[in-house]
Formats: sequence, C-alpha cells, structure tokens
Amino acid sequence: MHKVSESEVNIIRVQASGADQSVQDILAVEEPLEIRLVYGPADNRSTKSISITMRTPGYDFELATGFLFTEGIINQYDEIHKVSHSPSLLNPENILLVELKDHVRPDMIKLERNFYTTSSCGVCGKASIDAVRTTGNISKLSNENTIQINKNIFYTLPDRLRQQQDVFETTGGLHASALFDLEGQMLFVREDVGRHNALDKLIGYSLSQGILPLNAHILLLSGRASFELVQKAAMAQIKIIAAVGAPSSLAVEMAKDFGITLIGFLRDRRFNVYSGAERISG
Amino acid sequence: MHKVSESEVNIIRVQASGADQSVQDILAVEEPLEIRLVYGPADNRSTKSISITMRTPGYDFELATGFLFTEGIINQYDEIHKVSHSPSLLNPENILLVELKDHVRPDMIKLERNFYTTSSCGVCGKASIDAVRTTGNISKLSNENTIQINKNIFYTLPDRLRQQQDVFETTGGLHASALFDLEGQMLFVREDVGRHNALDKLIGYSLSQGILPLNAHILLLSGRASFELVQKAAMAQIKIIAAVGAPSSLAVEMAKDFGITLIGFLRDRRFNVYSGAERISG
Repeated sequence: MHKVSESEVNIIRVQASGADQSVQDILAVEEPLEIRLVYGPADNRSTKSISITMRTPGYDFELATGFLFTEGIINQYDEIHKVSHSPSLLNPENILLVELKDHVRPDMIKLERNFYTTSSCGVCGKASIDAVRTTGNISKLSNENTIQINKNIFYTLPDRLRQQQDVFETTGGLHASALFDLEGQMLFVREDVGRHNALDKLIGYSLSQGILPLNAHILLLSGRASFELVQKAAMAQIKIIAAVGAPSSLAVEMAKDFGITLIGFLRDRRFNVYSGAERISG
Repeated sequence: MHKVSESEVNIIRVQASGADQSVQDILAVEEPLEIRLVYGPADNRSTKSISITMRTPGYDFELATGFLFTEGIINQYDEIHKVSHSPSLLNPENILLVELKDHVRPDMIKLERNFYTTSSCGVCGKASIDAVRTTGNISKLSNENTIQINKNIFYTLPDRLRQQQDVFETTGGLHASALFDLEGQMLFVREDVGRHNALDKLIGYSLSQGILPLNAHILLLSGRASFELVQKAAMAQIKIIAAVGAPSSLAVEMAKDFGITLIGFLRDRRFNVYSGAERISG
C-alpha cells in the first residue's frame, strides 16, 4: 500500500550494540523526468526537450508547470493547452509533454536550462542575479510592507511541517517545501529528493489553483536555502522565506535585492534573519 | 582572514528566550562556475561551454577536471593540456577554460550536460543506468572481493569528517565528500554548497595525484546518497560508499548493479547496508 514515492528494499541493519538484523526498509524513490515542450503555430508545431531532472514521482504535472513558470518560460497557467505523458515509450510516466496554446511564443533563450548564464552577462553572482531579473517576470517587490508577522508564529512552522511530511518520516530521504498563510496555518506541502523539485511542485500547484502571486504567504524550506530556491520563490512573488538550514551567500544577496525576508536556522525556537527584518514583530 | 569559501553578513538573531541580537554571521559562498572546453586539432580549435554549476569557490580546477572525468568527457588526466581562468572578463574566477591536448577527441554526445538521457535510451531509471554504463568508462566492478572492513571502522568515520569540516562548522551550509583508506584514516575532504561538486572536487584531486582508481578506499558522504553521486563514484571505481543520510531508490539500484557496497544512515554507531554486505565484517 505504498505510494509511488516510496520503494521497499531488503537491508542489513548493523549496530555496535547487538546483532545485525536483516529487515525491510523503505526508500524515497528517485527517477528521471524529462519535460518536452510542444509549441508554435498550429500548422508548424515544434517539440523541444527542455529539462531532465531526477525527481520523486508524484505531482509530476505540477512539477512541469511549476518549472516552466519559475524558469520564465511561461508567464501564466492558461498559456498551457495540455500536459500529458509521452504516448509510446517504455516508461511513459517519466516523460511529460507540455503543449502550449497555439498563439503562445516562448522566448527561445529562456528555453535553455541555465538561461541566466547567457554569454552577455558572463558568469558572476551579481550579473546572474541581474539576468534573472531581466529575463524572468520578477518585478522588484514593493518596499511598502504592511505585512508584520510575530516571531512566535515562525517557531511553530517546523513542527507543523514535520507532522505532514509522511514520506520523509519513513525514508529520511526527502526535501520539503511548505506553504503557510500569515497566521502560520499550513496550506500544503510538497516533497522530493530534489529540493528545487519540491518547490516547483508547490509553485506549479499554486499556479493551477490560481492563487499566485504568493505575496501573503510564508514559504518554509526543510533544508538549506540556495540561490536557485530564492530565485524560484521570487518568481512566485513570495516575500517571506524561512529555512530550517543555512542560506548561501548568493541566496542572501538575492533576497536583499528583491526585498524578500529570508530566515535561516529556524529550529528550537530560534532563527536568524538575513534580510527583510522589518516584517518580523514581537 | 576568511577563505574565499566564506562570506560575512550582518544578521539579527531572534530567540524565544531573550532579546534579539544584531551579530555578524558567516555564510557559505555560492557562486556560479562555467566550464568551457577547448579541443580539436591545433589548426582548428573549438570552444564549447559544457557546464554551469552553482559552487563554493575553491579547488575550482579540481572541480572542472573531476566533472570532465565523472561525466566521461575525459578518460585520463593527461588528456588535459591546461586549465586556466578566462582571460578577459569581469569575473574571470567564475569561468574556467579547460584545454584538451590537440590529439584528444572528446565524444560530442558526452558533451551534453545530461548525456545519460539520450533519445535512444528514453528516460527511465533502468535505461539511464544502462546508458551510464555504456557511455561512461565504468566497467562492472569485479565480484571477487578481497576487501573486508570491520564495522567498527565505519562507526568512526563521521567524527573524523566533522573534525576536518572547518567551513561547515562555521556556516552549517556545506556538503562534504571525504576519502578514507581501508583502515579508516582520512586522506582528504572537499566541501561545497553542491554535493555533486564536493565529490567532483575530490575525484578531480585524486585524478591529478594519480591515485585513481579509488578501489581500495571508502567514500564518505555527509548527507544523502543520490543516483548522481553513486554514478560519479562508480566512474572513479569506488567500491565502498558510506552516507550519513538516506540513499534514494535509484542510488541503491545503481550500487547493486555495479557491485558497490552502499551504507546509509551512518550515525550513532549504527548503519544500514543497502548493497555489498559481503565487504563488511565483525
């Protein structure tokens, strides 16, 4: 009765105190997913493979649409005509076709996986942030902030996430992204072996439900906060990110640049504020 | 006096017990690195950008050579003529030129970043493993195993790693890959915001020192074991992988397929054996 996201194996449990045991264990499933984009006018459709990611199966349609949105390839959910599995192959569940509507013309430059590393900007932290801003549909978030969240609300978030993280509980092998409202109520959570996939699933679902922009929400990350995660959150106009783990230098730089409140090391009723402290009260 | 891999920021430390404090904190640095390959006959050299990765600066030459090796683009260290920083750009430290010797002809298919997802194999776990085997220079590791490691040796590894993980200690933001001999003595460790980068740095250094294949060694991973990490380890002919965190389903499948001993959840004098238990004694 396990979900597709879990897999059983026989293992040997070794311990200093006691004899070895042969037991059944549950693993987080990791499988590749290829996303193919179908686009162009009705009389001249093109198909292009735009991404391959190692992911945990489940919520794949949301992963694909979230990825397209956070990479700036689509701007709205209704640009998508249809998402379907590849019709003919041996493992159709690992290939998704995302068909755009006839009139939608995706920017071909953004179709490159690492679109923010165009030759024009070179490769440096600051330049890549600038490139994200200009190629993505991120506007600098407003500086006027009516949002104020009491610090006590943040303390409760990790426990609330843990109660919902069912696959992590059994496998220890998944990252989670969870969305909360400003009162600290969890709205939903997505899990994946890849943390960027967990966030794309969350944003893809939000997109399909019409609840973007996520500017009256808190995003909780179960692990560290990287540049890529902050960039994806910024695309969904998330203003408040709390991570259980450490942020990287570029994650902090990007959060400051986009007026995002970034919290790290949120555990044991403590946290660090790396940017946007004005949104925290108490 | 901080290394390039650390960066200082001002933060606010918030806690339930006591007043907020404004303090200086240290972050793990994350910056993009682009690897450009220069190859072909002397009278007709080509340059191709083959990878962009978000990495922690430091040991970049090793990262680049390790990446080329674990992706199967080069087979030996002496195929490289020179590694250098890009001469003319604003942030030359974030672009590396790897020049191959004139006579070396890299397989163009392998130059694609996700070379294991060629159209011929489709995208499914098993097929992608087969593709790694045929496109990489991995031979199935020998089944005759003279190696036997006492379980007590494994228990000591995480503590030995922690003693060496200096940047992790101060930032909490880095993954580590460490190489041990069969007696459990640490040879060296590499850290990075990206766990695949930490392993590429380790393998790149090993390559430069002429100590490949790493078939009389133990690889310790500070976090989880993914498919990608097991694949990279297999390219260096590593036979024993121990991870502090959980393995994924595909990591276990790959380890079994290549006769690799894979250990997970190595902590508190316990561990799980997912494959290759015959190499463990005691």
